[in-house]
Amino acid sequence: MSGDDRRPADAGWEAKVRDSFARQTFMRLIGANIAVLAPGYCEVELPFRRDLCQEDGFLHGGVVTAIAANAAGYAAFSLMPADSSVLGVEYKINLEAPVAADRLIASGAVVRAGRSLSIVEGDVRAARGGETVPIARLLATMMCMHGKAEAGHAHG
Amino acid sequence: MSGDDRRPADAGWEAKVRDSFARQTFMRLIGANIAVLAPGYCEVELPFRRDLCQEDGFLHGGVVTAIAANAAGYAAFSLMPADSSVLGVEYKINLEAPVAADRLIASGAVVRAGRSLSIVEGDVRAARGGETVPIARLLATMMCMHGKAEAGHAHG
Amino acid sequence: MSGDDRRPADAGWEAKVRDSFARQTFMRLIGANIAVLAPGYCEVELPFRRDLCQEDGFLHGGVVTAIAANAAGYAAFSLMPADSSVLGVEYKINLEAPVAADRLIASGAVVRAGRSLSIVEGDVRAARGGETVPIARLLATMMCMHGKAEAGHAHG
Amino acid sequence: MSGDDRRPADAGWEAKVRDSFARQTFMRLIGANIAVLAPGYCEVELPFRRDLCQEDGFLHGGVVTAIAANAAGYAAFSLMPADSSVLGVEYKINLEAPVAADRLIASGAVVRAGRSLSIVEGDVRAARGGETVPIARLLATMMCMHGKAEAGHAHG
Repeated sequence: MSGDDRRPADAGWEAKVRDSFARQTFMRLIGANIAVLAPGYCEVELPFRRDLCQEDGFLHGGVVTAIAANAAGYAAFSLMPADSSVLGVEYKINLEAPVAADRLIASGAVVRAGRSLSIVEGDVRAARGGETVPIARLLATMMCMHGKAEAGHAHG
Repeated sequence: MSGDDRRPADAGWEAKVRDSFARQTFMRLIGANIAVLAPGYCEVELPFRRDLCQEDGFLHGGVVTAIAANAAGYAAFSLMPADSSVLGVEYKINLEAPVAADRLIASGAVVRAGRSLSIVEGDVRAARGGETVPIARLLATMMCMHGKAEAGHAHG
Repeated sequence: MSGDDRRPADAGWEAKVRDSFARQTFMRLIGANIAVLAPGYCEVELPFRRDLCQEDGFLHGGVVTAIAANAAGYAAFSLMPADSSVLGVEYKINLEAPVAADRLIASGAVVRAGRSLSIVEGDVRAARGGETVPIARLLATMMCMHGKAEAGHAHG
Repeated sequence: MSGDDRRPADAGWEAKVRDSFARQTFMRLIGANIAVLAPGYCEVELPFRRDLCQEDGFLHGGVVTAIAANAAGYAAFSLMPADSSVLGVEYKINLEAPVAADRLIASGAVVRAGRSLSIVEGDVRAARGGETVPIARLLATMMCMHGKAEAGHAHG
């Protein structure tokens, strides 16, 4: 990504991203939080819970994907103009075999921020004790909906 | 898919799939159920709930993806041998703009069942009143882990 | 795809698509042709040639992907307004193990035609004698560049 | 990728990769070459030619994808055992708007080398004069076919 692309178009980018994330009831349900936020970059963390698992007691792939795509979406949103919202157009995720984890850390980093479309790459790591291992890679397309500020934000 | 591919390799395929789904605590958390199950085909339903939403009050893309990928995984698993488990290798999903929905219906249909890898296509529709509209398309790769029956199932 | 989506927005859609394809020198180089064309649907054919192969003498995956993505792009373009061009945003392809083939047939079918973005699915089959077998599946996002008619077409 | 993953399992990895690439008649047809090769990493270069273009005279997306996927495949193959071949399972590519280029440089880097499946990321840059700009990102799954050395290589 060129340096210019990384400059947020909205001075209020950080509050905008955090407000939007806070309105996502699904992130609250699964206990995910923004751990790191910077222009074009977002990290979402999620502690292990027994009610977030697949058939063998590991964190469900759907949970892994949800926080990876969310990190990617907010990485893209952080660079978008004030009067806009972000739409997840599509993403592809490669998952490794599930591992025991205390916590997941999903990061999204904007590769290219276009006027309309952004390309974002994502990475998910599983943390156990002091170590982390990579468990997933994401490649996503996010769209800027110009002139469509988020409803919640407009009233925020 | 050729006719042969659709013949389940495990006579106990249906119980195996339903048992596995029932052990997924994450599906229980979000209130998803298997609505239709046939060899090489699975439909997962999810009623709307306020705690499953994104920032504007629509069902979260992560929820849409989770049930689509799950339907795809169980469609593939239904055709796999008794002594095996299924691993989601990767998937790609195209999401349309979110719509108000009473309920989501995600289906997965096996396109090709190989010895090791299966290709599965998925579709998600949003239901409101008596009508449904398509909201997502999925293309996934699932892997058969031979000789690795699910832990839960072995004891089941 | 709803019926409405399949109505071409440009009365001259067929000439526009065929002219564009004819200007693609790469399709000429590999010997690919449009075999079937309808609103929202396109089929591209390619006869086997020894100079289009991978390491074991089968048609190269890059050739398979190129005609699949092209069929998808022109399927989308066929529904776009007169004063526009089509841009391939991204695609994902699943390839099966290569097979001997006299000819490949790649089809693209629009799943959803939005004002800006279209979702297109693709399928590639290998023909040998009178039979065909499926060898690849594609899921693609195409973008309509409004107000940017193709240079070649404008002069055509 | 962990350090261990990057150790080639075959002492003859470099000759094996170069021999395989040299047998790909399609790479010869389009004028692509291996520019850089290391364990788990491969760069493929392609000079501009008028017969490799799309409708507006830029290098065709199918050419971009073909060299990106090839670089990814050989990056993965470089780490595989002697008695094996590589199969491209699937890949997803994000393409930016086409730009004028003297030359393309596609790189593939192994993210994770498993016994059976490898995850590889790819990047394509367009070079013009002394500068390069990113034009595509790839995320791919490659499979190791154990016990199936390439036909050409076995006789080589």
